[in-house]
This record gives sequence, structure tokens and C-alpha cells, in this order.
Amino acid sequence: MKVINDLYDYEGFKIFQDDHYFKFSLDSILLAEFVDNVDNSDTILDLCAGNGAVSLLLSYYYSNPIVAFEIQKEIYQLAQESVRYNKKEKQIKLIHDDILNLKNYFPGNNFNIIVANPPYYKYANTSLINSNQVKAIARHEITLGLEDLFQVVHYALKSKGVFYLVHLPERLEEILSLCNKYKIIAKKIQFIYTKKGKSANIVLIKCVKEAKNGVKIMPPVFIEDYKSYKNIFRK
Amino acid sequence: MKVINDLYDYEGFKIFQDDHYFKFSLDSILLAEFVDNVDNSDTILDLCAGNGAVSLLLSYYYSNPIVAFEIQKEIYQLAQESVRYNKKEKQIKLIHDDILNLKNYFPGNNFNIIVANPPYYKYANTSLINSNQVKAIARHEITLGLEDLFQVVHYALKSKGVFYLVHLPERLEEILSLCNKYKIIAKKIQFIYTKKGKSANIVLIKCVKEAKNGVKIMPPVFIEDYKSYKNIFRK
Repeated sequence: MKVINDLYDYEGFKIFQDDHYFKFSLDSILLAEFVDNVDNSDTILDLCAGNGAVSLLLSYYYSNPIVAFEIQKEIYQLAQESVRYNKKEKQIKLIHDDILNLKNYFPGNNFNIIVANPPYYKYANTSLINSNQVKAIARHEITLGLEDLFQVVHYALKSKGVFYLVHLPERLEEILSLCNKYKIIAKKIQFIYTKKGKSANIVLIKCVKEAKNGVKIMPPVFIEDYKSYKNIFRK
Repeated sequence: MKVINDLYDYEGFKIFQDDHYFKFSLDSILLAEFVDNVDNSDTILDLCAGNGAVSLLLSYYYSNPIVAFEIQKEIYQLAQESVRYNKKEKQIKLIHDDILNLKNYFPGNNFNIIVANPPYYKYANTSLINSNQVKAIARHEITLGLEDLFQVVHYALKSKGVFYLVHLPERLEEILSLCNKYKIIAKKIQFIYTKKGKSANIVLIKCVKEAKNGVKIMPPVFIEDYKSYKNIFRK
């Protein structure tokens, strides 16, 4: 069912959701909060935009133009409604297409900032069993594998441009191997723990294209310590 | 100057040190403590043994035979003295050689458990400037690069054998890329923070040769919370 929700405590922001298709999660909030390196003139590229949560939150903090891709029509339409509702049509341009077609829209080495909240799970034959197809495509690597994503980022990012990724900690070895392979070098890693004493649930990675090797592992963040996620990484 | 020190609070254990050549550090303690998968019949291989701290600590917990390589004569001799002092000559066999010569001693796919506390820093022309050569070789990748280490581990480890590594968090992308390349798959990563609110200082990685991908990021450990490191990871 389609509903309109508050976008947490970002004053006045509302977002359309649909439990049959897509609801944003904490990961989107954290990804937007993790962005720390924005120059006013840069266009921000949001890959795998979902219902637009990351782009909307970025528009809360920054006035930069934002281009956001979403492959699935049902979810793209939710994002469109939210962008309109929040009167952000001038700032956020949504594109309903597969990011593998990005080269039809933009030349290579074009962006200084890219964010991505891609599908998290490897595709398996069981991926479609417990879920409808729209949800399955948002969560599983059915249309977009991890290496596909890195190829797109490698194409789209300028040298020294920054890529912010949110993903599952379980995939860290594969992610960092791809960083190394495509020279999208990890510079800062932030692990998020939902509960103290348990293993990490979310990883945020800031990468810089063609940077020198060397990554900083940030102090851990325990979600239970926070009531608001606003400026969670800016202390 | 050569001195004999207590090996922290491991009752009765003493270790020979020499501030001109080599002193063990917290990293060695943590590496030995991180080992969690020991079958009584397995021989443990300690690469880059230094003055023997890791092997001695392993002999505190386990009765397994231990083979330890140390390339530098001055440091190997310190290790020998410590092994004798602690009456562990029957359990710990020290080999004074470069681990790149390991194949002269052992066939491939021979070990179920390997531990390594290798040189941490990339070799640069400045590596020798602020240090004597013995210290420089222990700390910088002069005789042993990170990829050399993975090649040796790949040779020596049985399929499903376990490799425990301690290193600098800064090198994580390179380390996990090599894990991926040599199919020494990271299964558990433990970050160590000397101070709360600061970035991680030490990383411990447990890998399994030819395992399935998928790594667990353990709850962070803050050194300032502990007076003793005994069983620090066994709670």
C-alpha cells in the first residue's frame, strides 16, 4: 500500500513509500549522512536511487544538482512523487533507466561525487522465492552485480572524484577487491553496529578514484546510542 | 641492550628482548589471542616469528607442535634463548631462514594453521633512514612484501586451513584483494582501537583457504577497556 511518511527528523521532508514495492531503510539515511566532500558546483550522481531517500536527504544538506537513476518503474514513480511533493524538481533529476545505460546520458569521467545503495545480495535461484519481483530486483543482484556497479562508477567518476557506497559488511572482501581492481581506492570505512557486542550490520565506504592506497577505519557507530541520525558522522 | 622481560601476565613466561634489534608489541599478543581454531594434532606454522612472542603465547594455550621462521639472525637468537628459557624446545622448532625458502622444508598444502605478524610498512627509500637495518627489515617490506607472504601462505596452507594475520588497518584494501586473489578468504575481521573516538590501529584477520566468500566484522575492541589481554577475544 502506498503511504506518505516523514523522512525521519529532516524537517518537513516527506517520502512516498509502498510496502509492496519499496521502503527506504536506515542504510539510505546513513549513506546520505556519510557524504562529506561536496563542492557547490558538483553534480551528484545517485545510482540505484530507490524511492529517492538518498537524493532527498542530500538536497536537505546541499544545493547541488542531483541526477538519480532508478531501473524499476514502480519505484521510480514513488521517487518522482516524493521529489514533486518536496518541491525538488529543479534540483533532482530522476532518470528511469538501468545504470548500465549511463553512457547514453553522460560522457566518461564526468562526475566528482557518486553515491550508491545497490542491491546487497548475490543472485541465487532462490532469490525470487520469498519476494515479489520488484523487491527481489531492489535487494538481489539480478540486474546489477557488484562488479557491474564498479564498472559504471569507473566510467562515470573523474580522477580524484569520490564514490560513497553503502553495503553489507559480509561483502567487504569482494568490495575492496573491486576497489583495488578499478582503482576506486577505499580511503575511509565506517562500520555500523545495530547492537553493541554483535558483529557489524552496515558498512559505508568512501573511495577516491586513482588515489594512493591507504584506508582509515573510523570509530565504530552503535545505532542504539542515537535518537536522531542527523549529522551522525559530523561530530 | 638485551634484557629479559615478563611476557605480560602469562604466568611464568619470560622473553628476551633487545631494544637495538627487536621488542615484541601488543600486536603479537593479540595475534596469539585471536587464534581460535586449534585441533590438537595440527602443527602451527608461525611466519615472521620475531623474538618468538607469538609462538610462546600459543604454547601457553596449546600443546601443538609449532614451527617458527625468522629471517634475521640477531632476532632468531633472541627467540632461541626465550624458547630455551621457557623450556619449550620440544614444542617450538625455530628455523633461521627466509620464509620464501619454506618449500625447502615442507611440501605444499601441509599446514592447517598459519599465523603471521609480517613487516607492516611499504618499502620506500626512506625506510632505512631512521632505523638500523635489523629494525628496518622487521618493520618494512624489504625482504618480504605482502604478496610474497600470501604466496607462501597459499603454498603452505591446506584447503580449508586457517590463516591468522595481524596488520595495519591502512593496508586493508591491499590485504583483502590478496585474500581474494589467492583464495585465502577472509571470514572474520577484528579491529582494535587504542583509543575510543579514534580510528583503528590494528586489524586481525582470520582467513580460510578456499572457503566461501563472506566475512564477519567483529564487535570493536578498545584497548583502554582492558588491563589484561588474556582471553581478550574469548568472552
